[in-house]
Amino acid sequence: MTPTFETKNPDFKTSIEEKLKKQFFMKHLGIRLSVIEKAYVEAEVVFEDFLKQQNSFLHGGVTATLNDIVAGFAAFTLVAPDEGVVTADLRISYLLPGDAPKYKAKGWVIKAGNMLHFCESEVWGVFENRELLIAKSSSTMAVVKLANLKK
Amino acid sequence: MTPTFETKNPDFKTSIEEKLKKQFFMKHLGIRLSVIEKAYVEAEVVFEDFLKQQNSFLHGGVTATLNDIVAGFAAFTLVAPDEGVVTADLRISYLLPGDAPKYKAKGWVIKAGNMLHFCESEVWGVFENRELLIAKSSSTMAVVKLANLKK
Amino acid sequence: MTPTFETKNPDFKTSIEEKLKKQFFMKHLGIRLSVIEKAYVEAEVVFEDFLKQQNSFLHGGVTATLNDIVAGFAAFTLVAPDEGVVTADLRISYLLPGDAPKYKAKGWVIKAGNMLHFCESEVWGVFENRELLIAKSSSTMAVVKLANLKK
Amino acid sequence: MTPTFETKNPDFKTSIEEKLKKQFFMKHLGIRLSVIEKAYVEAEVVFEDFLKQQNSFLHGGVTATLNDIVAGFAAFTLVAPDEGVVTADLRISYLLPGDAPKYKAKGWVIKAGNMLHFCESEVWGVFENRELLIAKSSSTMAVVKLANLKK
Repeated sequence: MTPTFETKNPDFKTSIEEKLKKQFFMKHLGIRLSVIEKAYVEAEVVFEDFLKQQNSFLHGGVTATLNDIVAGFAAFTLVAPDEGVVTADLRISYLLPGDAPKYKAKGWVIKAGNMLHFCESEVWGVFENRELLIAKSSSTMAVVKLANLKK
Repeated sequence: MTPTFETKNPDFKTSIEEKLKKQFFMKHLGIRLSVIEKAYVEAEVVFEDFLKQQNSFLHGGVTATLNDIVAGFAAFTLVAPDEGVVTADLRISYLLPGDAPKYKAKGWVIKAGNMLHFCESEVWGVFENRELLIAKSSSTMAVVKLANLKK
Repeated sequence: MTPTFETKNPDFKTSIEEKLKKQFFMKHLGIRLSVIEKAYVEAEVVFEDFLKQQNSFLHGGVTATLNDIVAGFAAFTLVAPDEGVVTADLRISYLLPGDAPKYKAKGWVIKAGNMLHFCESEVWGVFENRELLIAKSSSTMAVVKLANLKK
Repeated sequence: MTPTFETKNPDFKTSIEEKLKKQFFMKHLGIRLSVIEKAYVEAEVVFEDFLKQQNSFLHGGVTATLNDIVAGFAAFTLVAPDEGVVTADLRISYLLPGDAPKYKAKGWVIKAGNMLHFCESEVWGVFENRELLIAKSSSTMAVVKLANLKK
């Protein structure tokens, strides 16, 4: 039942690696992409102190960032070289407080269109011997011409 | 038509200032609270380079973080001293790319309950002579006993 | 601070009245539009027994339908005569159970674009001497060419 | 990776059948539950004319109703006999217009708690020889004492 997707940019890995060089916020948080496949992307981050909220859990803003990154890049693997994606809408269900030494995020496309890509993503707390789903997200990614995006 | 809310903690400002000392992620992003009123909170952040995504706009994760912070603290102003709030659900509509030198976020409660506080929040790009709404958010905040939250 | 919007169809009222003739589901529920203005629409429905869920409150599906209708038509007032809108994403916060003899829904556009219109809407329970906000919604409406929509 | 859930009401099927007798809105739309399992519920509806919007597609309000019903009942299978669930938040991604002769909805719990059950649901268009995912939903269901719900 898993859909298969066609990409308009077979060289999406190179395009993403190029984009990552200027992804300052990801670097500031220590987030790195660990898997880049067509319509599917994973990211990882170590739980450093600067990612904590006042009760020493993972800040909900980090969880949102992780969801946005993997969903956005999953959508990006499908668009043409002269296109980009912007998040139109992001919705996160916070299932559990984040208390793990490391986090992994998984993002994928559930429906691709000409204008909109619908995505889902998950954030997992990674412990030594198990993984725990702490957040699930759905998002609407809008396809835009890069020419309209550049500053 | 604006509802008025009752707080179970008249000393909510002191409680929030106490919490802020341990809000490492906010500090890491340079976000500070600028207004703390009953059921209403504002935050500000200067658009430093480390908040940028690959096209030099404000990263969507920062926008989500700002929304989460002001909505969460707005809800927090209402709960009892032995209670806290956790985000159950956060939904952000990204209206415009962020391109301003400074950002302001406003969060408020639209419906308070014993178990759940429903909130809204906005992120505005602050230019020299105008402000531009770049994101709007709605969220469900769950009231929890602090004893259950502490690590 | 309220934005003003431009419409590509100054005759939007006629277009909507034409559409309403074939709006079978609205008729099946007894919902009628009571206000049609540029970027703003209201609807009303009497609380008949067939709109109830098992505890005799307004069914959440009716609340969702009301939100979808007023937000969708508010967006529709802005698009060109050969365009329509489809809901890409709808999110409803259920603030209170519906227990009023009548309901009123208000929908409006918060940000209009070429591709996407972001909307909000509210459902109010209408009692003899007061109105109570029971649900608030945000939605992303996609602009489509009618030619692509017709069956 | 699929979580297993514990129910506080082993006799949930009987409880749901009892509830269905008073589910007037479901009857008004012709929706019936076809599968009732612990933390998982399916519903079906034939695409009658009165479920259509102006372009002869399934009305988005019906899609929302289907999502709300299967997610809500999936959550309901877990709560104690003196408890019920109310939808706090429902979010629907509309992936494709509904054009099938019949629709099937599937709802399940992804995280159960004492206060909140997080659910997901899907609506599928059922054609003679294939099924097409037309909408995906996530929701936050709040557990409430039935005594507080009854009118």
